[in-house]
Amino acid sequence: MPSPVPARPGAEIGQVDTPALIVDLDALEANIADMAAQAGQAGMALRPHAKTHKSVAIAKRQLAAGAVGLCCQKVSEAEALLPSGVADMLVSNHVVGAEKLRRLAALAHDVRTTTLTSDVQHARLLSAAAEAAGSRIDILIELDAGDARMGLADAADLPALAQLVCDLPGLKLRGLQVYNGPFQHLRAQAERADAARMAAERAQRARDVLLANGFPCDLLTGGGTGTFSEDIAAGVLNELQPGSYVFMDSDYGRNTDSTGAPYRPFRQSLFVLTRVMRVPQPGVAYVDAGVKALNLDCGMPDVLARPDLAFTKASDEQGRVEGGALQLDEQLFLVPSHCDPTVNQYDWMVAVRGGYVEEVWPVDARGCVL
Amino acid sequence: MPSPVPARPGAEIGQVDTPALIVDLDALEANIADMAAQAGQAGMALRPHAKTHKSVAIAKRQLAAGAVGLCCQKVSEAEALLPSGVADMLVSNHVVGAEKLRRLAALAHDVRTTTLTSDVQHARLLSAAAEAAGSRIDILIELDAGDARMGLADAADLPALAQLVCDLPGLKLRGLQVYNGPFQHLRAQAERADAARMAAERAQRARDVLLANGFPCDLLTGGGTGTFSEDIAAGVLNELQPGSYVFMDSDYGRNTDSTGAPYRPFRQSLFVLTRVMRVPQPGVAYVDAGVKALNLDCGMPDVLARPDLAFTKASDEQGRVEGGALQLDEQLFLVPSHCDPTVNQYDWMVAVRGGYVEEVWPVDARGCVL
Repeated sequence: MPSPVPARPGAEIGQVDTPALIVDLDALEANIADMAAQAGQAGMALRPHAKTHKSVAIAKRQLAAGAVGLCCQKVSEAEALLPSGVADMLVSNHVVGAEKLRRLAALAHDVRTTTLTSDVQHARLLSAAAEAAGSRIDILIELDAGDARMGLADAADLPALAQLVCDLPGLKLRGLQVYNGPFQHLRAQAERADAARMAAERAQRARDVLLANGFPCDLLTGGGTGTFSEDIAAGVLNELQPGSYVFMDSDYGRNTDSTGAPYRPFRQSLFVLTRVMRVPQPGVAYVDAGVKALNLDCGMPDVLARPDLAFTKASDEQGRVEGGALQLDEQLFLVPSHCDPTVNQYDWMVAVRGGYVEEVWPVDARGCVL
Repeated sequence: MPSPVPARPGAEIGQVDTPALIVDLDALEANIADMAAQAGQAGMALRPHAKTHKSVAIAKRQLAAGAVGLCCQKVSEAEALLPSGVADMLVSNHVVGAEKLRRLAALAHDVRTTTLTSDVQHARLLSAAAEAAGSRIDILIELDAGDARMGLADAADLPALAQLVCDLPGLKLRGLQVYNGPFQHLRAQAERADAARMAAERAQRARDVLLANGFPCDLLTGGGTGTFSEDIAAGVLNELQPGSYVFMDSDYGRNTDSTGAPYRPFRQSLFVLTRVMRVPQPGVAYVDAGVKALNLDCGMPDVLARPDLAFTKASDEQGRVEGGALQLDEQLFLVPSHCDPTVNQYDWMVAVRGGYVEEVWPVDARGCVL
């Protein structure tokens, strides 16, 4: 049973129960259109990462704006987003565990299914699962993008792994992925450009190795919301996979452009609406959004349009706000510091326009950790 | 639609899909029995805080062991836990917002419903909601326990607020609550004892003020997992409301006893089971539990029974483990750093005993932020 809905379509914002996840539809639609236009002008395919929103309603809007498919980070997330009508799904992670491998292979019956590997033993597990299901899983070899995380670090290992993927009966080699999460949050534009160039050079060398050895490399995917313009400028990827651009957050808001000014190519569309529960003394208030209504791994949220207020502390279900005057029952809009895990706290997303609730969407893939 | 279940009853641990929230039933049952015994020996009522587990199955076990009722932190959480059979529910928070007040007043038709206030304006809102519903809400006046948070700070304001609660037609004064979250995590036993004594003295003075003015004070509730033995020793409260004792976490594991040794009066019963996705180099592994499968506001999780390993970093769906040798697909048990918000990430809890899955429980009140 999901938790109760915080609002009904047609309600005024003031009637929305709190805390609630709010999506500003004008900002969301502008962000979806802007990213689609920029990828299109660059001649690059766009495959938005759905781990950010976990929402069929938003995935449908991205696909309608020309996205070639979606990324998901988990098999169950991909399953939950099939009703969006997506035809080309990338599970951009290394799937392990017999049950998840079984479900990944079954997913490949419903939709073109691509996933990542960078390991010989793992590739064999993927193929065995596809064989058992009578399906075929498309493979991108993940390259280390400079953070020694999940990708293949040594280009010398690439031909043997590519050959194995081509030889294994359940797999088909589709290309390469190069993605580096921390690059997205490098504050200075010059740092992000250097990082994107470095990742692009690695991808280019790896692609050249594949092609020189007669392997296919149709898809060269990567990049994110922090580096997308630098990824376009680097000119090597043929597909972008940003996620956060639909919502943005205060952490991305701290990236800067080439002049050092805040770099905000997209609008903030995601908020947590909260209410004042208590004003114990002037200049201090407690609101009804705490650790279970936010996510604090990237710091405290900002308070929208109230530069006099700072959100300073949170317990499970309470947040402390300090600064200017507040009254019992007053609503505040918080700008989350990290959009993806904040969305994952909620069963419902309240889509608003012009001060009214237009739609209430389930967070379809919430909690889909498997 | 909740996310897929990670296991079926009867499965071996090795078959459980990951990441998964695991509850060790032997440890859980021992914790429930031990806290009930200690409260009983002290002649104190026990009202476990259900925000920790959000589970009907666990609430039933606590009630069967003699708990007089439950605490919840949200109205929707209380609603979700009614199937436990609870007859006396304390929503230990300040409920605001017209819709939540309406639902709180409706809850009072189903179960004895008590909640907190420390504010005249708020008390009037509570009463109006109860009047509109034709119900009665029992009230505890919340006292500031030394952290200037939600409670009444000035004892001089107590008689007037108590009189108002007695006069308002929808309310009935039941007593006092004094709870301080940060006290629970004071590391040294002497600090926790001082804090508990200070809170007890405030509660005693406030109770004496109520009784001297002819007001009732049947219930004097507070305390938590970190201070419960000091709260018992202080001898003022007549009810304890600990939550985390059922599970424990690595943050509570850092509290110390009077000798400075780790103070662990309860067993660790909660774990996140994870699997190795990739070993990019010797001594480094990536596992399938990240920010969305844990909660990092109290630090990184510990790795159970592997002192050679440290969980050092997490992205949304990946965790980095450094130290000893690990293999692809190997399972690890993580000890969460903060049990309450970790549980709230999951739709399912896998209850295990002797290496096998005994039951799979929904996290009934997951996401109940309203």
